[in-house]
Amino acid sequence: MPITLEQLNRASLPEATQMLDGLYEHSLWIAEQALAQRPFASLAALKHAMVTVLEKAGVDAQLALIRAHPELAGKAMVSNSLTAESTHEQTKAGLTNCTPDEFAHIQQLNAQYNAKFGFPFILAVRGPRGLGLAKREIIATFERRLGNPVDFERAECLRNIHRIAEIRLNDKFGFEPTVGNAVWDWHEDLSRHSDPGFAEQGQLTVTYLTDAHRACAADLVARMRECGFDEVGVDAVGNVVGRYRAGPLPEGQGAKTLLTGSHYDTVRNGGKYDGRLGIFVPMACVQQLHAAGERLPFDFEVVGFAEEEGQRYKATFLGSGALTGHFNPGWLDQQDADGVSMRQAMQHAGLPASLDAIDTLKRDPSKYLGFVEVHIEQGPVLNEMDLPLGVVTSINASVRYLCEAIGMASHAGTTPMDRRRDAASAVAELALYAEQRAMADGDSVATIGMLQVPGGSINVVPGRCLFSLDLRAPSNAQRDALEQDILARLRAICERRGIGLKTEETMRAAAAPSAPEWQARWENAVNALGVPLHRMPSGAGHDAMKLHEVMPQAMLFVRGLNSGISHNPLESTTNDDMELCVNAFSHLLDQLATEHKN
Amino acid sequence: MPITLEQLNRASLPEATQMLDGLYEHSLWIAEQALAQRPFASLAALKHAMVTVLEKAGVDAQLALIRAHPELAGKAMVSNSLTAESTHEQTKAGLTNCTPDEFAHIQQLNAQYNAKFGFPFILAVRGPRGLGLAKREIIATFERRLGNPVDFERAECLRNIHRIAEIRLNDKFGFEPTVGNAVWDWHEDLSRHSDPGFAEQGQLTVTYLTDAHRACAADLVARMRECGFDEVGVDAVGNVVGRYRAGPLPEGQGAKTLLTGSHYDTVRNGGKYDGRLGIFVPMACVQQLHAAGERLPFDFEVVGFAEEEGQRYKATFLGSGALTGHFNPGWLDQQDADGVSMRQAMQHAGLPASLDAIDTLKRDPSKYLGFVEVHIEQGPVLNEMDLPLGVVTSINASVRYLCEAIGMASHAGTTPMDRRRDAASAVAELALYAEQRAMADGDSVATIGMLQVPGGSINVVPGRCLFSLDLRAPSNAQRDALEQDILARLRAICERRGIGLKTEETMRAAAAPSAPEWQARWENAVNALGVPLHRMPSGAGHDAMKLHEVMPQAMLFVRGLNSGISHNPLESTTNDDMELCVNAFSHLLDQLATEHKN
Repeated sequence: MPITLEQLNRASLPEATQMLDGLYEHSLWIAEQALAQRPFASLAALKHAMVTVLEKAGVDAQLALIRAHPELAGKAMVSNSLTAESTHEQTKAGLTNCTPDEFAHIQQLNAQYNAKFGFPFILAVRGPRGLGLAKREIIATFERRLGNPVDFERAECLRNIHRIAEIRLNDKFGFEPTVGNAVWDWHEDLSRHSDPGFAEQGQLTVTYLTDAHRACAADLVARMRECGFDEVGVDAVGNVVGRYRAGPLPEGQGAKTLLTGSHYDTVRNGGKYDGRLGIFVPMACVQQLHAAGERLPFDFEVVGFAEEEGQRYKATFLGSGALTGHFNPGWLDQQDADGVSMRQAMQHAGLPASLDAIDTLKRDPSKYLGFVEVHIEQGPVLNEMDLPLGVVTSINASVRYLCEAIGMASHAGTTPMDRRRDAASAVAELALYAEQRAMADGDSVATIGMLQVPGGSINVVPGRCLFSLDLRAPSNAQRDALEQDILARLRAICERRGIGLKTEETMRAAAAPSAPEWQARWENAVNALGVPLHRMPSGAGHDAMKLHEVMPQAMLFVRGLNSGISHNPLESTTNDDMELCVNAFSHLLDQLATEHKN
Repeated sequence: MPITLEQLNRASLPEATQMLDGLYEHSLWIAEQALAQRPFASLAALKHAMVTVLEKAGVDAQLALIRAHPELAGKAMVSNSLTAESTHEQTKAGLTNCTPDEFAHIQQLNAQYNAKFGFPFILAVRGPRGLGLAKREIIATFERRLGNPVDFERAECLRNIHRIAEIRLNDKFGFEPTVGNAVWDWHEDLSRHSDPGFAEQGQLTVTYLTDAHRACAADLVARMRECGFDEVGVDAVGNVVGRYRAGPLPEGQGAKTLLTGSHYDTVRNGGKYDGRLGIFVPMACVQQLHAAGERLPFDFEVVGFAEEEGQRYKATFLGSGALTGHFNPGWLDQQDADGVSMRQAMQHAGLPASLDAIDTLKRDPSKYLGFVEVHIEQGPVLNEMDLPLGVVTSINASVRYLCEAIGMASHAGTTPMDRRRDAASAVAELALYAEQRAMADGDSVATIGMLQVPGGSINVVPGRCLFSLDLRAPSNAQRDALEQDILARLRAICERRGIGLKTEETMRAAAAPSAPEWQARWENAVNALGVPLHRMPSGAGHDAMKLHEVMPQAMLFVRGLNSGISHNPLESTTNDDMELCVNAFSHLLDQLATEHKN
């Protein structure tokens, strides 16, 4: 019989503790201490309470917990210390059917890992979908994580332990994240389409209007129809647009529309969730509404934007730009690497390839309530904080420069320190200032991503140094102040050191702060789920940035695994987090419906 | 009638000032103020007094002096502001025979130069030999100096003004640096030999045992014979060895030997003076002794070392190493880029290519007084201080590392500052510490000459950073302390930032401090010339470093023009400085002779 949350909240502490036995390996104290925070509003709240207990327990207790786990496979399989759950999970993941070579390789990885970290390798082998990772994936993860710094890897082990506990907790409570599973599977299914040259290598690449791209659009159309959208179609730029019509409204009241969506194109060798999550999550909401025969008091429009990444053509935000009237006519003549113009690509895809047709896509903001977008974070914050959701406060303003510092190359042995014009030292000084300056803001970032002394020699004082600057902040004013301070310091450093300087601005984008009322709706939704509320800026650009130009917008972020890595096949998120995300979106729809009724 | 130094020292101030009229363009005040330091022991002392006056006068006075000069050629040629000297010098340099294209080009350079610097381009067009630069050289120098930072270029103009004044002063005093001229010309003559592939491009490259190298040896042998050496030959490794035998000694007293010399091989596309100056200067001393029929109370052995630069074979210090018994037998089998072994190269050059023969080159230290070496500075110090000579206190100890910092590549927009593992920021922090740490010693140097974020992107936090470390100090202990502090700080920075670190030591060389008694002899010589004494470490390695292993040694440095650039065709030094250098060496020989008599 599964436990219910009500039973847990009402039980005595010893009874409740016993109910949670086996979540954390030989460490019942974690559940026991977490239970002090009863009653829990949700399983998510209980999970987070246990995460918090372990975080506060300190490094020694964390290491003890990690060390309570057996080594992966091999000797550990027959060890007395192995709990029944561990045996079950490892069996499920198929590690028991190793060849002798694989077994020897895993033994060697265990030895290397222990030598480097001093604790056993922990992996939630049931994986982000809960069905078990393939042997190949487990071994690849093991190999990859061997390269991590020690403290990072300790934290990664703890995150895996929390994922293991989450799955065990779900099992205990008979909870299956069925909606999250479905959404997870939709991503997996859509990822079977990939452009030639990448598909063969198992890499995901879907660029604008390729065969794979059009197959994705067709799949989205079909899936939207299945979910119960009333109108589904592909528009003149390839956007997949679904509309779930409002229910009957009071006489004389026309339905406004809530717009949402994200992009279905990908970068080269990208992840499965970037963009697509923001299409599938609202689709799942419509699926639930439709299944329940419910209607909203507003039209709900979900768009799969055809192009956001600017990979095949330099036409970033083409899909969302078409809705805001920012389709650049010059794009039609742009050619891809094979000399195919966008016009030809559109014609080949059966699109009208006409500016008039594209013009009709422009939305009338007066008919819209606003725009919301769900997106995988693409950053490490939620993953590191063990939080499934984050509410976006602003999409950061940004500015980029390519720079060159010009000093004087001279002999490293014969040029005294006080007679040097070391171009690289000047850049080093700037790098540290930029770091401190951005840090002082709290939510600004400054990055020198490109750094090179061209033709540098071990015994020559650098005469030149090439570097880039990428500055971002939640508001234009904050970005401008950051930029001003950093450039002023750069000039002062170069002046003082007798270094010449060339700077070239290569990009500038305005901030898109969240509309307060829309941000508040996301916050209400997160609070309602019993998930701790975390507000954060978006460091990356998103379709919401374009829609921001014509209507209020706000975004919700979902935790990414593997430090939130994105634009990379390692991009990942769990069925449980997706389930929370769908629930949050449904809550936002409910709020809006309630507001409309009142 | 030329003026004499005695007349100048005895004249009234107005008279003396008048004698020095025309040295500095429309700026008699410089000479007038310098005359307060009378009596002058030498022209060199007078020159330096005027340099000091201008240095102390400050930037405004310096700029006024620079602006008192006409623009190079063109309009300036007909300007009233042009002194007779200027016209004479420009005519001598051949700038008056410009083609219309050249004239237009010079006009354009003048315009660009004035726009950047706000003062006219000043060049001592009579050049380092006093005979006038070629039009081609003048234009190339103009173009090159346009790239200088403003304050550096102002100082370069002042240095050229001092060189102009030096030549004018020599003219006034009827002084011709005949020995310096000869030594300068010997370098020029020897530089006609260059290896194939370089000779065709007018580049100087003389690597071990090539045809050009053997031609140089033959020239040196012939020149030594002309100078009056008693024994001249090429030894088993290709060193050119000349001996000027001692005069008759008291009964029962065997002659000891003073050893000197430097190398005649060059780096690829190198300078004409690196190494060779240390052969020609003592040759000039012998020439003078022989011409005067004088003998020293000790044998004087001058060696042109065949190999110091390690260009054709990795056999650095082969020539001097053979004298100290450090010829590495493994070298004989080493092959050059064309697959020619050193043994084959020796046989081709008519050398015995036998280890037994090479063994006989080893000198018995008990028969030697010591080793002295003259060398062009290969650094900016003397040039910047307007000093012709520097006495070396020690050849610096050194150590080199190649390093890699390993952080975690992540999205520049989405990774908050406090969650980064930026490999390049860690190296930036080290770079500033290394700079400060070396600066604190005063005479240590620390250089990060190679610096690169491999595959860096503008929007990715650097996950890796490759860099080099080159650390040098006048003593092993000081180098070790520098190394220890910098590596400790590097480890601490990486630890704090969660950055992995790989370091590989690639080179380590011990310091060669000057023997105090030999350093004192050079100091006495410099003082006797009326040249300000400047002591300095040698940041680069020299043959004296090898000889240091078996006998006391001390070096004298000569100022290099163009910021002391070396291993570069721009390496340069003047006939006047060479003359001083020969005089200093002769003085050292005199001192030693006097010591022997007492």
